[in-house]
Amino acid sequence: MIVARTLAELRAARAAVSGTVGLVPTMGALHDGHRTLLDHARADNDAVVATIFVNPAQFGPNEDFSAYPRTVEADLATFERAGVDIAFTPLTAEVYPPGFQTTVEVEHVSQGLEGGRRPGHFKGVATVVAKLFNMAQPTTAYFGQKDAQQVVVIRRMAADLNFPTDIAVIPTQREADGLALSSRNRYLTPAECAAAPVIYRALTAAGEMYAAGERHPDALRATMQAVLASEPLGRVDYVSLADPVTLRELDTPTDAPMLASLTVQIGQPRLLDNALFPLHLNTRAGLTQTLGKT
Amino acid sequence: MIVARTLAELRAARAAVSGTVGLVPTMGALHDGHRTLLDHARADNDAVVATIFVNPAQFGPNEDFSAYPRTVEADLATFERAGVDIAFTPLTAEVYPPGFQTTVEVEHVSQGLEGGRRPGHFKGVATVVAKLFNMAQPTTAYFGQKDAQQVVVIRRMAADLNFPTDIAVIPTQREADGLALSSRNRYLTPAECAAAPVIYRALTAAGEMYAAGERHPDALRATMQAVLASEPLGRVDYVSLADPVTLRELDTPTDAPMLASLTVQIGQPRLLDNALFPLHLNTRAGLTQTLGKT
Repeated sequence: MIVARTLAELRAARAAVSGTVGLVPTMGALHDGHRTLLDHARADNDAVVATIFVNPAQFGPNEDFSAYPRTVEADLATFERAGVDIAFTPLTAEVYPPGFQTTVEVEHVSQGLEGGRRPGHFKGVATVVAKLFNMAQPTTAYFGQKDAQQVVVIRRMAADLNFPTDIAVIPTQREADGLALSSRNRYLTPAECAAAPVIYRALTAAGEMYAAGERHPDALRATMQAVLASEPLGRVDYVSLADPVTLRELDTPTDAPMLASLTVQIGQPRLLDNALFPLHLNTRAGLTQTLGKT
Repeated sequence: MIVARTLAELRAARAAVSGTVGLVPTMGALHDGHRTLLDHARADNDAVVATIFVNPAQFGPNEDFSAYPRTVEADLATFERAGVDIAFTPLTAEVYPPGFQTTVEVEHVSQGLEGGRRPGHFKGVATVVAKLFNMAQPTTAYFGQKDAQQVVVIRRMAADLNFPTDIAVIPTQREADGLALSSRNRYLTPAECAAAPVIYRALTAAGEMYAAGERHPDALRATMQAVLASEPLGRVDYVSLADPVTLRELDTPTDAPMLASLTVQIGQPRLLDNALFPLHLNTRAGLTQTLGKT
């Protein structure tokens, strides 16, 4: 595995590989969700580029940029075990040199949900992903469905700007109790950790109502709210039921797929999770088919 | 020459060429300035892609989008004579399909000069150029120094977003009397055409003062203003002396290169022109060296 720390090193390493290239962009602090992205990239491609970059442009002034967990040595060992060919771990000044002033914005789908609570977040995400695409020139880039709005923003950006890169969306990886893997789970106390699976229970309860024929968004949202209300350690931020492509909040019944997403603060971290209804769509093929209508 | 009208046709034609690729993006209404861009692209590369697309996103609501001259058949003949391999002439809906919502913005250098008078213009330019880069995947893209601020915006965008594309800047082509070639010159009456070279005389008068040792921006601007004031048909919009890379207006003497740019309305069209001081920098090598410090 080549470890590139500068853009020049990455370009040289990239120029030396041929065939298909998979890109797995990460902020490090890797868990088994990232490992699954790496495994898909490895299985699909002739070469794999993986990056570790905690992107300051996607953190707000009161967010956890400086406290975001950094475990670079362990992350590089994970890359190596996963068969990554090129690891890219640039310094901030390599990505944002003096005079940098260009931004990429995906206007509508960046607005609500996380974007509403984190102004500028998805502008920072779209900009750094556009840069990484141009740096690594991947055939396919891999993102986790765990960050559902991010997936929609990046798919839209890649389509709108005509990047010659496919976006692969990989299902959320979970603990045995259903808790979605996240780098921020490490901040949960044992009691909070025991409480956190309520999020997945809320999603599956609504998903089962959907399977039983319920189609009214208000009823499905009410079910998620009721399950979440049963857990005193959780403070609900939002519960959304939206069109999976446009992210417009649904207010009338529909037989089209729905994206249920919610955010709950449990202890220090805000925990995000989501599921497509019907639940059988939460596979790589189902996600690709449902989100692919951009 | 392959004429691609859809993105799929362009991608197929692009995939069939190998080696270096030069891209010449145009809005059509070609003149000898465009022909010079095509000649440089042809001389430098294994293959040449040239595009004709009047980009609605870079026209303001009160500008001349629908009236912009369209001469596609003659333009394709020019491409053919210049040895273009692939011509791309997409419909607007091919470039901006329903649901399109992504923009690229180069924040600081888009602000003043033309950007100050045409809000959103350079956002439209940066967005479509990013799209064309991803569509055509050129080794080098060719732009005319005639649109000096556009060149700065595009160079900055390409560097900031790490496009694997070099930007070649080609000197402004002129009539024998010094008038810069422009698609909008066709709107000049014979009397206005005779008056228009006052713009180039203003630039050269200040350039000669610079050569004689004058370094104060106010003195150089005053010379340009005085020459322009001698022509009653011209209405000066602005006269600028700025840093060629940051486009910050200069207010103190400097020995570094300066970008003199000005806009004068003569009859219907607003005519733009510019020159680097010292004047000997207005060559392809001089422009590349001076602007390359992004």
